[in-house]
Amino acid sequence: MSQHSALSTQHSRVETLRWRGGRLELIDQRLLPGRVEYLACSSAAEVARAIREMAIRGAPAIGCAAACGVALEAARLQRAPPSEFAAGLDQAFAALAASRPTAVNLFWALERMRAALQAVEPAEPAAMAARLLDEAHRILAEDVAANRAMGANGAALLEDGMRVLTHCNAGALATAGHGTALGVIRSAVAAGKQLSVVVDETRPFLQGARLTAWELAQDGIPVTLITDGMSGHLMGRGEIDAVVVGADRVAANGDVANKIGTYMIAVLARRHGIPFYVAAPLSTIDPRLASGDAIPIEEREASEVRGYGGVEWAPAGVAVRNPVFDVTPADLVTALITEKGVVPAPDRGKIAALLR
Amino acid sequence: MSQHSALSTQHSRVETLRWRGGRLELIDQRLLPGRVEYLACSSAAEVARAIREMAIRGAPAIGCAAACGVALEAARLQRAPPSEFAAGLDQAFAALAASRPTAVNLFWALERMRAALQAVEPAEPAAMAARLLDEAHRILAEDVAANRAMGANGAALLEDGMRVLTHCNAGALATAGHGTALGVIRSAVAAGKQLSVVVDETRPFLQGARLTAWELAQDGIPVTLITDGMSGHLMGRGEIDAVVVGADRVAANGDVANKIGTYMIAVLARRHGIPFYVAAPLSTIDPRLASGDAIPIEEREASEVRGYGGVEWAPAGVAVRNPVFDVTPADLVTALITEKGVVPAPDRGKIAALLR
Repeated sequence: MSQHSALSTQHSRVETLRWRGGRLELIDQRLLPGRVEYLACSSAAEVARAIREMAIRGAPAIGCAAACGVALEAARLQRAPPSEFAAGLDQAFAALAASRPTAVNLFWALERMRAALQAVEPAEPAAMAARLLDEAHRILAEDVAANRAMGANGAALLEDGMRVLTHCNAGALATAGHGTALGVIRSAVAAGKQLSVVVDETRPFLQGARLTAWELAQDGIPVTLITDGMSGHLMGRGEIDAVVVGADRVAANGDVANKIGTYMIAVLARRHGIPFYVAAPLSTIDPRLASGDAIPIEEREASEVRGYGGVEWAPAGVAVRNPVFDVTPADLVTALITEKGVVPAPDRGKIAALLR
Repeated sequence: MSQHSALSTQHSRVETLRWRGGRLELIDQRLLPGRVEYLACSSAAEVARAIREMAIRGAPAIGCAAACGVALEAARLQRAPPSEFAAGLDQAFAALAASRPTAVNLFWALERMRAALQAVEPAEPAAMAARLLDEAHRILAEDVAANRAMGANGAALLEDGMRVLTHCNAGALATAGHGTALGVIRSAVAAGKQLSVVVDETRPFLQGARLTAWELAQDGIPVTLITDGMSGHLMGRGEIDAVVVGADRVAANGDVANKIGTYMIAVLARRHGIPFYVAAPLSTIDPRLASGDAIPIEEREASEVRGYGGVEWAPAGVAVRNPVFDVTPADLVTALITEKGVVPAPDRGKIAALLR
């Protein structure tokens, strides 16, 4: 049972974001699993670029990185005159908010940072910078704590011996640590359950193949890789017992925006009577959006679909669609797993109660 | 309307198999769309290898290639003593039958060749070789004719302006010419209907991205490439009007084995009330198989899933599943399009009647 001993601390070995010498270092997720390299950021612009270009990705991780970006910028400008400090921070907020459109944690984290700033205004820039750094650290710590609580809550849903399908990467690499969907799996394994994970590669960015398969292997959790068209076949053959995924935004009625391909898995899971769980912290819920129809769906560049890693296999110039997320209607969600508890068959009333 | 004039002859510009100087030449589909190169085969062993390694693929094309492989071997051995000729042909039949397990056209074509041989036995090897070459030519010509008839039958199902989803490659490249699913689309376009095609890339071998996108572009038919997880999202947004796919084997009850991922598309199409059509010649129907459960599903090597074209993006040594086909139950098939006519809601009785 090597996977149990490897997880005895319930910690993932993966460090997604870390502070080193006053700079924010991010694992460059574009290089995984081939190379483990950290990208050092010293300004909000550098963090915004890392988010935009997907060196860091995953809704909670993006929120954490954005908070750190504001703190970095404040530290950079803390000896500037107050008006320059304020203008620089405004620019930082704007650049970070524009880096990715779908994950609501990004906007949630920026609002937290804005509120922290307003709570100490007016003050010396250095004092405000200290307050913002403190708030960023708090957001990271809260994210890890939320994931651990979510893990404990969700672990009860997974039974010993289950073969669990996940999609994309909702792991330590998508958060400040432990993970959302993979956090649930980690917590269940730490509780002594033997689980095996099936992950689809998640084209075009291959987060399943590159990140989830790597992350689980680091922790010794058995993982099998498939392509995105295979999960329905495995469900039909009785080889999948549960699905657990993360979320980029959850609407007030429980509709879930998550990585493109999630919706197809949810429909197939329903057809085969397989529970479909979504693990997401409260910061992923956007009560201002009535339903999934209103969630903005980012479309990224065509080159991502035409090939990968500099290799193009599609005919040159072929037209491409590249929606990055899709929306799974709440009625396909067996339960929403949050740090505050498990919400079976989420709907508008239950989501509102959860947020109260 | 450039796509119409380009198709005025209703011919595809793609030549999948051809005879040159007594050898069989196959477009090497592993190199498309980057390079258009023909692979010359002089023996059954070379053809079997081309099928096994997927230089040629697509159920009808595999059947045609196998027939040509028998004819090639007979020509090669036609000056040998009769016992050596017979033993060599037996080996050729065995090697070709073992090259791929799922497409029934392969076995159908080999049975046709065996019957042609038995019809002239006993005879001089040279006479038998001539008969086998003639039968191989006939199988190719009949395949093209079947595809044209299927195209004419199926074209009536597609309406002007439709956005048609297809999967993998069921085109000229998968047949001796014109194509099955793409033949239906070609015939509808030739009849003056404006269609646009959405094709998913079809991992792991990328037949959608590499072959279908290329083949349709050659003929000037508008095509948009997506990844395998996107079709459900597009259906949900009302951007797909019909699905047309090919088949590798159709069971006696109408269950359809086709490229992995087909089943998920069929389930999503049903959910969204989108017609799901399967275009397949009668040679794809296997009346000896009661249902799809009995169709053997080939699993190919792990390296196909870990990357593509020599580039590996998955962690080294990660466990992989690689089923190449899945089974779509007959009740998800809106209609089966054959050269003998269109069979709406195919079932055991209608399939039996079709084959009578």
